[in-house]
Amino acid sequence: MTPALRSALALAERLFDELRAHTTDAPGITRAAYGESEQFAHELLKRTGRELGLAQAIDAAGNLYLTMPGEDSELPSWIIGSHIDSVPHGGNFDGAAGVLAGIAVAAALKGEGRQLKRNLTIMVIRAEESTWFPVSYLGSRAAFGILPAEALETCRADTGLTLRSHMEALDFRPDAVAAGEAYLDPARIHGFIEVHIEQGPVLEREDVPVGLVTGIAGSFRYREARCLGAYGHSGAVPRADRQDAVVAFAELVAALEQTWDGLERDGERATITFGEVGTDPTQHAFSKVPGEVGFCLDVRSESAACLERIHAELRQHAAIIEQRRGVRFDWGERTGSSAAVLDPALRQLLAASAERLGIRAIEMPSGAGHDTSVFANQGVPAALVFVRNQNGSHNPDEAMRIEDFARAVELIHRCVVAD
Amino acid sequence: MTPALRSALALAERLFDELRAHTTDAPGITRAAYGESEQFAHELLKRTGRELGLAQAIDAAGNLYLTMPGEDSELPSWIIGSHIDSVPHGGNFDGAAGVLAGIAVAAALKGEGRQLKRNLTIMVIRAEESTWFPVSYLGSRAAFGILPAEALETCRADTGLTLRSHMEALDFRPDAVAAGEAYLDPARIHGFIEVHIEQGPVLEREDVPVGLVTGIAGSFRYREARCLGAYGHSGAVPRADRQDAVVAFAELVAALEQTWDGLERDGERATITFGEVGTDPTQHAFSKVPGEVGFCLDVRSESAACLERIHAELRQHAAIIEQRRGVRFDWGERTGSSAAVLDPALRQLLAASAERLGIRAIEMPSGAGHDTSVFANQGVPAALVFVRNQNGSHNPDEAMRIEDFARAVELIHRCVVAD
Repeated sequence: MTPALRSALALAERLFDELRAHTTDAPGITRAAYGESEQFAHELLKRTGRELGLAQAIDAAGNLYLTMPGEDSELPSWIIGSHIDSVPHGGNFDGAAGVLAGIAVAAALKGEGRQLKRNLTIMVIRAEESTWFPVSYLGSRAAFGILPAEALETCRADTGLTLRSHMEALDFRPDAVAAGEAYLDPARIHGFIEVHIEQGPVLEREDVPVGLVTGIAGSFRYREARCLGAYGHSGAVPRADRQDAVVAFAELVAALEQTWDGLERDGERATITFGEVGTDPTQHAFSKVPGEVGFCLDVRSESAACLERIHAELRQHAAIIEQRRGVRFDWGERTGSSAAVLDPALRQLLAASAERLGIRAIEMPSGAGHDTSVFANQGVPAALVFVRNQNGSHNPDEAMRIEDFARAVELIHRCVVAD
Repeated sequence: MTPALRSALALAERLFDELRAHTTDAPGITRAAYGESEQFAHELLKRTGRELGLAQAIDAAGNLYLTMPGEDSELPSWIIGSHIDSVPHGGNFDGAAGVLAGIAVAAALKGEGRQLKRNLTIMVIRAEESTWFPVSYLGSRAAFGILPAEALETCRADTGLTLRSHMEALDFRPDAVAAGEAYLDPARIHGFIEVHIEQGPVLEREDVPVGLVTGIAGSFRYREARCLGAYGHSGAVPRADRQDAVVAFAELVAALEQTWDGLERDGERATITFGEVGTDPTQHAFSKVPGEVGFCLDVRSESAACLERIHAELRQHAAIIEQRRGVRFDWGERTGSSAAVLDPALRQLLAASAERLGIRAIEMPSGAGHDTSVFANQGVPAALVFVRNQNGSHNPDEAMRIEDFARAVELIHRCVVAD
């Protein structure tokens, strides 16, 4: 490793620490999309960009672009980036690792006094985590001018304010977002590379520091589903008269487990998760048959056909349970995202760099969604590099060894230098 | 029906209306044990007692006794009573019907200028609903001096205050309760009669206004149980690596349904209810594998052996699920109450009165617990009279036709007069 690279990694480490120190929200950290904590991170990165002599731009939605000019600025650019927001009480690395990988590559190039052939832009993407506004890939879609205008008015954060209000409060330009103003043009992008911690245990188990992602799962989601039965006295309502929402919900969960068994038998890859469930605290009691339970369902697969199969079985199971249990499922809005196939040539370039550097890397799919999907679906050659991570993601215990992060930075540095 | 009875029922109706008007907490009514709303009801009944010329006494725990002296006060007394607290957002009749039935009987006797052979006491019992303090039959147990002293310190309401503090705030005598001071002596009670709305749909379905209860179910409860797994990213953690608390909980619910199927095949009567369930709002997200779910379990049966069978199967199911799903069940405290057999002679007297008055009545068990249990288990001849009720209980929609309530009042009036 060159001294310039080593010093760039030390900078990244200091930035990780500064982010953690300023956005701690025990347990873990919280960086709310379009909130104060995400804004703190953007300010920190702007300052870092100035120190590295990078040109700065901000688009209508508040995405930040820090650019190191290449020999020929007319050539399509490299973009390295990720989001800087987090889930509530998440970990310090989900998102931030991709931004700081870009910073580290730029800092290394600067330290080496090297100018690339083409521009290199670090993109700090807004609002990727859809726990804040119930929409996926908000920032990256806005950057391409493809965020539906109604999202500005209908999406509200837990502050009670709309996305438009949040954008206005930070002096961005929601009207331009609504009008579909695009900052990014797919034809002007040579390649998009996102570094992200792996959010599952595969790399750890395989003892490999880096994963090269082949494709990103799409999803369907019901985030405000309810099972509606009837409240009754827990001791006095005979079994045959019950319309027990919790029992009906449990049957649905069990039925979806059977669906998942069937998918595995057929070699289909998917995940099915009921991440939130709750009876109504204003109505429930330990001595009442529960008359209502709310829940979230998140289903992901790389295969659109597989998603539709699960959706069809979900509705079949629900219809049977409704009849048997005297309940009704109220699904609310269906949201989700499309699957994305990543660029084989760019992946091949990364794999070749890894081999030359002696870094072990495996190819793997991503069950989790990422901004990379948006770039890929816009026709941009896109790559996603996973870094090994010990305790899963979207939780306060997520971890990442800085030496594994260093491998990803080295890999990308090599890749853009070799271009 | 005599004019005195008719006028007594009109008084009861006015009292129901006044209770509802002052304790409405939409949806439904709330009368919190040892709270302002229960206290309002006690004040209303004290005033009513004064207007009817009844003697007034309050015991160390705040139970209220309104007594119409009989010809021979040395004879053991009749007690007619029930509780006046409610579940949160409950209905107006659960509990109150039993108190106002006693008031109506006393008012009718007064209107008729009739003195009974023995004293007739209307007992307004404190804190029957264990949603407030996690203990069953708090008031009636304290009246017999059998409430465990530690309940005063360990039981806290949602106010955050202990039972002792609540009693002190209302000028009652928690030290005397702790010392086991008894206001009631089983040997001095001729019979205890509680009127209560039926909390299930049986009388409505059988088209009968009144039920005479044969026995009251006992229970076991886990009110703060949790299933503990591990949080993870919903898209990134493969199925085999998941420790999904919601899936494990759903399996437990399904397994208990199978246990219930087995009980029904064996002719055992029980109810099994998971009335409250919820993931942790400070940790959960739609995009996280849920690492924890809290729940309440309430199991009831007239048979102690049946309760133990269910408990044993519960623990077996849980052990299997823990192993299969990599989760752990944390049960918390086990609470519950004993089953009670009611007095056949007193029930026979009520049945004979019903026949003479041409009131249709059926014998039935009670799946729900009642203060009557405490009297019966203290050796007092005890009876429980159910009144038909349209929409179940422990919910804001509970209903009771005043003409059905009138039948219960007539029946008891007849029974005490015929003594």
